[in-house]
Amino acid sequence: MALALNKEELSQYLVEVFPQVRDDFAIEALTEDSVIMRLLTAERHLRPGGTISGPSMFALADVSVYAMVLARVGRQALAVTTNCSMDFIRKPDGDAQMIAECRLLKLGRTLAVGDVLMFSEGSGKPVARATLTYSIPPAGSAAASF
Amino acid sequence: MALALNKEELSQYLVEVFPQVRDDFAIEALTEDSVIMRLLTAERHLRPGGTISGPSMFALADVSVYAMVLARVGRQALAVTTNCSMDFIRKPDGDAQMIAECRLLKLGRTLAVGDVLMFSEGSGKPVARATLTYSIPPAGSAAASF
Amino acid sequence: MALALNKEELSQYLVEVFPQVRDDFAIEALTEDSVIMRLLTAERHLRPGGTISGPSMFALADVSVYAMVLARVGRQALAVTTNCSMDFIRKPDGDAQMIAECRLLKLGRTLAVGDVLMFSEGSGKPVARATLTYSIPPAGSAAASF
Amino acid sequence: MALALNKEELSQYLVEVFPQVRDDFAIEALTEDSVIMRLLTAERHLRPGGTISGPSMFALADVSVYAMVLARVGRQALAVTTNCSMDFIRKPDGDAQMIAECRLLKLGRTLAVGDVLMFSEGSGKPVARATLTYSIPPAGSAAASF
Repeated sequence: MALALNKEELSQYLVEVFPQVRDDFAIEALTEDSVIMRLLTAERHLRPGGTISGPSMFALADVSVYAMVLARVGRQALAVTTNCSMDFIRKPDGDAQMIAECRLLKLGRTLAVGDVLMFSEGSGKPVARATLTYSIPPAGSAAASF
Repeated sequence: MALALNKEELSQYLVEVFPQVRDDFAIEALTEDSVIMRLLTAERHLRPGGTISGPSMFALADVSVYAMVLARVGRQALAVTTNCSMDFIRKPDGDAQMIAECRLLKLGRTLAVGDVLMFSEGSGKPVARATLTYSIPPAGSAAASF
Repeated sequence: MALALNKEELSQYLVEVFPQVRDDFAIEALTEDSVIMRLLTAERHLRPGGTISGPSMFALADVSVYAMVLARVGRQALAVTTNCSMDFIRKPDGDAQMIAECRLLKLGRTLAVGDVLMFSEGSGKPVARATLTYSIPPAGSAAASF
Repeated sequence: MALALNKEELSQYLVEVFPQVRDDFAIEALTEDSVIMRLLTAERHLRPGGTISGPSMFALADVSVYAMVLARVGRQALAVTTNCSMDFIRKPDGDAQMIAECRLLKLGRTLAVGDVLMFSEGSGKPVARATLTYSIPPAGSAAASF
């Protein structure tokens, strides 16, 4: 149940395998079964009206569960998303950064499941929720062959 | 943000509009934005091997969100499910009753969203999770015409 | 890409491992990547107002994908549902039997994905849709340990 | 059941309300209940290894259903996504453009549901599937208040 990577190791590994995260996401906190991730909101994440785009919220949820899985299984860049469900619940505040709270619900031998609540920073009402399933490649394999 | 029905009124109304719940489900606790529901596990909910069937878990999640919505909007029997996502995470324990913890994420004018974690009683590890959306008929209308 | 079980073998195997299907479901047609399943609608599947219950529709979708997977991989009773998403689109007609059209989208080494459209017999408008993921236990293992 | 906007009007309106689509998406074909949309794959849609990113596939599915809804209800820019489920089924081919085939399953007074299959151009095997629900603002209202 221990972390394979601490917050600093995880941040560094994410940037290594997934360079685009450097400017988009920052890990705020990490425990054995949860991570808090910040979307570093920039012009490219917005839609007319100042709201945050659906694809940006999808990306935030996806990277949160990916980071959570890697924190536990270690440097396994080839974990892949197999399923996602999302509910868009309220209009996000385009002036606030978006915060994702991710819980790891399951870490099995081949599948991991995490769910995510997303908030506009400073508000307690969820803007969106998501659940994602990741397929984890067997140790030693070249890739997830789900 | 107040409850339109308290726990006793809600239990009674559910039995009235939905008589099959009497033997299948019991409300354990109710707050303004959460409900805990028990599946009164019986032979008909089981699958060979003593595990609880998928349709029984679906029914538990569905009735939990339905009850939560009615607790807030009052006697609106015609609220209908429009969407459900579920993840089956662990094998449930067929010897234990199943407990659902439902949170209300959104109660809008026409849509409500609730999510549900399900546990075998006595275990802290979730067996399944679900999110459901309900369409709420406008006050005075004969039915939800989503 | 060939079927491991033909329609008669599949029907017989389903009844063997899953006796409750005998009275609830009938396979209408089977190809290498599709199955048509009928819900043999009875009083126990209905809700007040004559509509078919959500759990009955869930069960129909679930058994359709399960049957499709077994038709391809053979007698692997221990395949388990890991994820389901459903949309309830129209009020079903309680006087008509419900027909599910299932397509196999993916049959991998460990995961299978099928989607399902459900119709009230005689109507061309879908009543519901669902997508289910099954975890397939490795050959020779005692169970799916997803 | 007629189209409110033809293919040219729809393309033009999408660019108007949603300028970023100009470089990302192109409508290939439009009927009363289906649309075929192309992702104009560029460097920014790719992940290391040459595969198309999850957020790009989400965006393709989302814009496909949005376009389908607008084609039927007319210039209603404020329709908003309320729910999405996606399955990632195969590794997309980063060298091929991605094609989405969207079917409109339901167009109600307040909710529309569409589903989408995504293919790497030239391949008949789906790379991903998605179902999205849109909330349609009442005629004359300033916004969808779901």
